[in-house]
Amino acid sequence: MNIAIAQINCIVGDLEGNARKIVDFSRRAREQGADLVVFSELCVTGYPPQDLLDNPAFMDGVERAVERIAESIPPDFAALVGAPARNLEPVGKRLFNSALLLSGGRIIARTDKCLLPTYDVYDEYRYFEPATPTTCMEWKGVRLGVHICEDMWNMEEGVAFRMYATNPLEHLVRDGADVLVGLSATPFARGKREQRRRLIRGICRHFDLPLVFANQVGANTELIFDGTCSVHAADGRMVAAGPAFEEALTFWTFGQDETVSETPRSDIEEMHDALILGIRDYYEKTGAFRGAVLGLSGGMDSSLTAALAAEALGADRVHGVLMPSQYSSQHSIDDAIAVAEGLCIGYRTISIQQAFDAFRSSLSDAFSGLEEDVTEENIQARVRGVILMALSNKFDLLVLTTGNKSEFAAGYSTLYGDLAGGLAVLGDVYKTQVYELAHYVNRRAGREVIPRNVFEKAPSAELRPGQTDQDSLPPYEVLDEILELYIEQNQDLESIVGSTEHDEPLVRRVLDMVDRAEFKRQQAPPVLRVSRKAFGMGRRLPIVMRWSRDPILQPVTSPSH
Amino acid sequence: MNIAIAQINCIVGDLEGNARKIVDFSRRAREQGADLVVFSELCVTGYPPQDLLDNPAFMDGVERAVERIAESIPPDFAALVGAPARNLEPVGKRLFNSALLLSGGRIIARTDKCLLPTYDVYDEYRYFEPATPTTCMEWKGVRLGVHICEDMWNMEEGVAFRMYATNPLEHLVRDGADVLVGLSATPFARGKREQRRRLIRGICRHFDLPLVFANQVGANTELIFDGTCSVHAADGRMVAAGPAFEEALTFWTFGQDETVSETPRSDIEEMHDALILGIRDYYEKTGAFRGAVLGLSGGMDSSLTAALAAEALGADRVHGVLMPSQYSSQHSIDDAIAVAEGLCIGYRTISIQQAFDAFRSSLSDAFSGLEEDVTEENIQARVRGVILMALSNKFDLLVLTTGNKSEFAAGYSTLYGDLAGGLAVLGDVYKTQVYELAHYVNRRAGREVIPRNVFEKAPSAELRPGQTDQDSLPPYEVLDEILELYIEQNQDLESIVGSTEHDEPLVRRVLDMVDRAEFKRQQAPPVLRVSRKAFGMGRRLPIVMRWSRDPILQPVTSPSH
Repeated sequence: MNIAIAQINCIVGDLEGNARKIVDFSRRAREQGADLVVFSELCVTGYPPQDLLDNPAFMDGVERAVERIAESIPPDFAALVGAPARNLEPVGKRLFNSALLLSGGRIIARTDKCLLPTYDVYDEYRYFEPATPTTCMEWKGVRLGVHICEDMWNMEEGVAFRMYATNPLEHLVRDGADVLVGLSATPFARGKREQRRRLIRGICRHFDLPLVFANQVGANTELIFDGTCSVHAADGRMVAAGPAFEEALTFWTFGQDETVSETPRSDIEEMHDALILGIRDYYEKTGAFRGAVLGLSGGMDSSLTAALAAEALGADRVHGVLMPSQYSSQHSIDDAIAVAEGLCIGYRTISIQQAFDAFRSSLSDAFSGLEEDVTEENIQARVRGVILMALSNKFDLLVLTTGNKSEFAAGYSTLYGDLAGGLAVLGDVYKTQVYELAHYVNRRAGREVIPRNVFEKAPSAELRPGQTDQDSLPPYEVLDEILELYIEQNQDLESIVGSTEHDEPLVRRVLDMVDRAEFKRQQAPPVLRVSRKAFGMGRRLPIVMRWSRDPILQPVTSPSH
Repeated sequence: MNIAIAQINCIVGDLEGNARKIVDFSRRAREQGADLVVFSELCVTGYPPQDLLDNPAFMDGVERAVERIAESIPPDFAALVGAPARNLEPVGKRLFNSALLLSGGRIIARTDKCLLPTYDVYDEYRYFEPATPTTCMEWKGVRLGVHICEDMWNMEEGVAFRMYATNPLEHLVRDGADVLVGLSATPFARGKREQRRRLIRGICRHFDLPLVFANQVGANTELIFDGTCSVHAADGRMVAAGPAFEEALTFWTFGQDETVSETPRSDIEEMHDALILGIRDYYEKTGAFRGAVLGLSGGMDSSLTAALAAEALGADRVHGVLMPSQYSSQHSIDDAIAVAEGLCIGYRTISIQQAFDAFRSSLSDAFSGLEEDVTEENIQARVRGVILMALSNKFDLLVLTTGNKSEFAAGYSTLYGDLAGGLAVLGDVYKTQVYELAHYVNRRAGREVIPRNVFEKAPSAELRPGQTDQDSLPPYEVLDEILELYIEQNQDLESIVGSTEHDEPLVRRVLDMVDRAEFKRQQAPPVLRVSRKAFGMGRRLPIVMRWSRDPILQPVTSPSH
């Protein structure tokens, strides 16, 4: 049997568009000799459909879309598609997360997801009833062990605990599966693909069975899917591999076990490609914009954001705005111009001085007798926000927010100022990684797209004379090390102090900065997720919160005994 | 046996403060003759602790706090407290949502929550392993059928389906419970309390058993808890009742069955009290502010917000700012002053003209030859946002956002403009309810706190000459009716058209407005939740989304067969 794996770029909610794409890829797969084409999890709705699933009218649309897809599939061919399906029992959540085998105009088999990820960015138990492990599907004499994403993740080795009591794969194998077939929608994160392949190799060897892995590609708001569909043989070797970050059909003939090889790529290269796709899909899928705009300060974050945007959208659709303050150095202005010219993006200079002076004048009564402080710095940042949003409103431009993850974490940013925008491109990229990405952008272009000056000068918000980031923050190498342990690795004070060279007051200060900035992050634009733990939908913390980290040592006041 | 029910106002994460309060209420309960005091769900951490639960250091703190509380409880007395407890099995989520019976310095019994709400604002399966229904706890010869919040909600009558397969109460009754004891953290929503009491009455009658209901009080960011602990006798009558929206100890002697009566209160009165508590707790629990500030336009939303804030925080802590535009009418300015003076809050006038002119001048090159449009309206709104935030920064003031739910829904608001702020007081109150609340505020005060003029004039953003809200929006009675069906009742186009007099294009336009404004709402401040479905953590929709509502009628392009 010939199996095609389709990695398609779905748009959340676009039932008609997604259906058309599924029909098109099915036709192409069949024309190229496939007996079966396997699509990704929830490809009919796009992932994640979120609370659209609660809308009965949306579910009616899903059912119609599935019917239309089925009508296009002839009896000698089958398409395995991911879609939500209604739970008709009077008990349980109202939906299942399902894989539907379509052929000859009908749904000929269905398997529902058993293990429902409900952590980080995943909310599946919000919508879906967990299914009881079931039997294989059969197609052209081959027993397909169909499972959905998390269903295969209860077999990871070397983990401290199993999140779920059941292992759906064991049931499929016991039911005589000839091949395991997984439909996934696994968002990209640094290092995730290698972890997944390790898992799949382990599963194949454990059961002595091949595994077909179908994954979504494309970005939906925060989440980026990298595709990289694959087939691993029973001995764990990879025998078919789809590309990363683009749509594709990948073919595999049951029994074929010739190893395929891939060019190894670094984490930074992958992160670069993920961000490009994330920007492009946000822009194109919203369909609301006629270009993008961002502030160009001559600093590293805005320079890199501009370079990524120019690559993602085309230089002619990216507009830079220089908004120097009275504290901006001439070299910053020169650097910003050099970046714009190097990227061939349009730019203009709009002064913030007039508006800043106007605010100071209007506020002079209210502020009379008071020293200048961070308030005035914030006003400058917010004047820039107003200017970018005005350009956005007038010309239908997407405002790209340029802050990085280190700043988001530490709250080193101004709400409605530099935090304003539609998409935070680098919001999941630590400052030290920003530099690595910028080096890669230059290496890739074979020239200094981002000028040397930008690498060499000390990072600064230039909101008061002689200011640098390190006036307020620890050095970025130190800050990022602590942040990574806190945010991604879920360690806390004692553990971080124990595993690093940093002293307790410094680590505590960083952790407190992160906690206190929660209210700002909850009003920040969506962040393109490229790590295991990004700010946004996958990290949910209370704004009103008073955890002190101080051990409760004293007996609390005793009742009268 | 004498049972005390403690409704305490916990702060999320404040393990030491919550522990101290639990110890204090336990002592008072014992002094007043109780044998047992029952606290609410997760009272040690406050509800909802969200991802603090993922932090092992936080859980260490929880365990220490529980130990300290237990140490304060003598052997002749017991406290039943809600806290997360670690799952020590190698399988499953790492925590349980537990009720711990503390006495004589130790945990003498534990019951874990079986049914984990994971919908709307609830994310419990994100953290907790569902427990298997278990046996009763015994204290002083009475068998306590201890269960936690959702555990009792699988018995509602007249619902279309059961969300869970098990009913923990049945297991407790089978195990010989003498009384059902529920620990809850049920957020306030209009009509929820009556629904809950109906449920409890039904449970009591069904099992012929009394039920003790302990609930949290106080607000944590978006969620407001109303307390109103109660005991219902085996025949369903209420025999003990705690107050609404304040801390209290309520006593009940096992077997006592004298009916208690309550003064009935309207939905609007309840909503008023909820908002007052919501403002006060946000302000006090964050502990970051020395006052609150808001823009006073002379319109209804800002007038009502000012009145609620003055009541919640005291007039001397509320500061009004008049920021008239060139399009503001003199009567608006007069009305704003009348509101401030009527409430005895401080106010000042800060012109937006200078800053607006400065922006127009700075942008004149960029906008050269283009008509004025919504861009200029938004600049005015954003100038106001910058001014309020400057006052916030300089004087540590909480910016109160004044927009209502109808505006939030329709996107009739300016991001970083009138949407700027720390807390959206009326973000879950429809415009028609805003008027009802304002009438109530006046009735309650016995005078026109909010002047008649404010009620009588047409709502307007006053951002261009002669503008009224109804230039862009349907009449609010129509809009709110459609919004309520869409948002709270989860109906869609066809169903709304079917159940109202409104025609399809109008309803479609409203629904599309709501969907398209999602990107704004995701950057809005937290909204005080007073309905069944508020914008914020309980309503999760994708920004990048392309659902058209158009039926997929045509067969999608057919493959070659």
